[in-house]
Amino acid sequence: MTFNATAYAATTTEGPLEPWTFERRDLRPDDVLVRVTFCGVCHTDLHSLHAPREDADDSSLVPGHEFVGEVVEVGPGVTGFAAGDPVAVGNIVDSCGVCAMCEAGQENCCLEFPTLTYGGTDRVDGSTTYGGYSSLYVVREAFCYHRPTDLDPAAVAPLMCAGVTVWEPLRAWEVGPGSQVGVVGLGGLGHLAVKFAAALGAEVTVFTRTAGKADDARALGADHVVVSTDDDAMAAVAGTLDLVVDCVPTTHPLEPYLASVRLDGTVVSLGDLGPINLQTMALLGRRRLSSSGSAGRPHTQEMLDFCGEHGIVADVEVLPSAQVMTALDRLERGDVRYRFSLDLSDLA
Amino acid sequence: MTFNATAYAATTTEGPLEPWTFERRDLRPDDVLVRVTFCGVCHTDLHSLHAPREDADDSSLVPGHEFVGEVVEVGPGVTGFAAGDPVAVGNIVDSCGVCAMCEAGQENCCLEFPTLTYGGTDRVDGSTTYGGYSSLYVVREAFCYHRPTDLDPAAVAPLMCAGVTVWEPLRAWEVGPGSQVGVVGLGGLGHLAVKFAAALGAEVTVFTRTAGKADDARALGADHVVVSTDDDAMAAVAGTLDLVVDCVPTTHPLEPYLASVRLDGTVVSLGDLGPINLQTMALLGRRRLSSSGSAGRPHTQEMLDFCGEHGIVADVEVLPSAQVMTALDRLERGDVRYRFSLDLSDLA
Repeated sequence: MTFNATAYAATTTEGPLEPWTFERRDLRPDDVLVRVTFCGVCHTDLHSLHAPREDADDSSLVPGHEFVGEVVEVGPGVTGFAAGDPVAVGNIVDSCGVCAMCEAGQENCCLEFPTLTYGGTDRVDGSTTYGGYSSLYVVREAFCYHRPTDLDPAAVAPLMCAGVTVWEPLRAWEVGPGSQVGVVGLGGLGHLAVKFAAALGAEVTVFTRTAGKADDARALGADHVVVSTDDDAMAAVAGTLDLVVDCVPTTHPLEPYLASVRLDGTVVSLGDLGPINLQTMALLGRRRLSSSGSAGRPHTQEMLDFCGEHGIVADVEVLPSAQVMTALDRLERGDVRYRFSLDLSDLA
Repeated sequence: MTFNATAYAATTTEGPLEPWTFERRDLRPDDVLVRVTFCGVCHTDLHSLHAPREDADDSSLVPGHEFVGEVVEVGPGVTGFAAGDPVAVGNIVDSCGVCAMCEAGQENCCLEFPTLTYGGTDRVDGSTTYGGYSSLYVVREAFCYHRPTDLDPAAVAPLMCAGVTVWEPLRAWEVGPGSQVGVVGLGGLGHLAVKFAAALGAEVTVFTRTAGKADDARALGADHVVVSTDDDAMAAVAGTLDLVVDCVPTTHPLEPYLASVRLDGTVVSLGDLGPINLQTMALLGRRRLSSSGSAGRPHTQEMLDFCGEHGIVADVEVLPSAQVMTALDRLERGDVRYRFSLDLSDLA
């Protein structure tokens, strides 16, 4: 028995998202059927919509890879979830499960490449995955997460991509009390990086090109704000930070942020900057440049639990699902503080 | 009382090195006068000779920043050395002593910039420093090191630059038994990186473009040799190494070596590659790119002590000082295994 789902899909490249109906697969033994209630709108959704799609059969694109909802039904082998459970799903829904990365709980780095929540290829039946801009989703239990019920579900949705993407480096670099953390860019990822780093006990410095964002940054938990075009302010912070989480998703000079970290400090870039030009001398003093994306299963559940304990959610603007194109257009223009969350409960 | 020294100096840009006499400064309270016996020939010496020098007064360049010798005389405040002591000096001879880097024992990263052994500016009298291709050297006690007497002094000299430069990242990244270490380039630095990493207990993989170097690499202590142009061999090593020490001093693609390291693994480049083009996606999986140069005082003495305990020296070809131009010419052509050591005892 398959499940009739309603979604917003692009059926032509560059075409607008329009209502579309399709069937979700029947539950396999380890599957969970989720009624989607809210889904965050991520920059990746824009990239995917703009990217060419190859043939007519697979051309329907349903974006959405940070969503929440409730369990409707579970497969016979599911042990961790039951109907009615509040859940959340992120940007990967399967992985090989046996490689060194999967064994280390870093399914996001699966050497066989993880299955993406949309536009991916299901590992069992080879079908294309359709995302969370949808009334229903069928997901392997292993990639479904328990969601703290005290938190506004609309504001939890963005934690599943924007959230885990910044949580991962903060945890991997062991940020805690006494850590000096920099955050570059105060958008969907950056505003969560500030909240997380502050809640972990770090002293947080926000780098922004816009002096007007200083109050917002402090309200989110930043201790210091450095306007990155202010040479004196940049010189004053040089060599002081342990970790800089760079959330800017477009090419930009990394040398100023490398200069801000101390001996053995790290700048971790969370965007796909493509090929960059880098002065290797900016890495002297054992400064490190790294990149990270998404997170594995253990860090994902850990992040949700941490948010539940600390009352942390994304700052969202909620729009009804019918306004999905408005959300995408405004996101493209940078007109959101800090994340759109689509209300998909109206699709049911 | 100053000291008459004989040296090999370039008195014009691009001019050959020729015998030159000059005066070393009188001993300050914390100075040590060293009779130089052997000095390694480093790529930096070539770079310095090729670089433009500004005015006639300062145009005399005496290269040499990895040398050994014996103490002749000490200043009245010197406590750690006495006449006759076997010593070694590296590529820095002073630093501010009070910045965070100096306090951390990383004088090589001194925020006020360390004083270079040659072509630097003395912090007390503002004079230009002249290097170790010289009969005598006057150095602050703090930047003079005790040299194990069981080791061939000619072969110890290159440890003071080539050696510390590879020792530093191996120690900073805590290489030890169980570590998987890659070494790129089997020259002056690389051959010491292999010896050190093997002696520290690591499993060592040498990357080389030349299959013919495999036997040499194994003789130095490598467990595996990967010919970097062999795509299958490169694919086989992908994601397996903890640290890659990249000793190639010219621009080259770093992505293949970043691919060879595991989650949280590091490629540390030891050359000044200038501006490079880098695919940031090669850093995904929290792979790290870093750079390091030289070492601070604690690691320098530690390296010499380790070499004494483990009987490690550089593989050198010793030439009389009068053949300095032969050494430089052959180094420029890559015709040395693995380091020239000039015998300067003949200048005395």
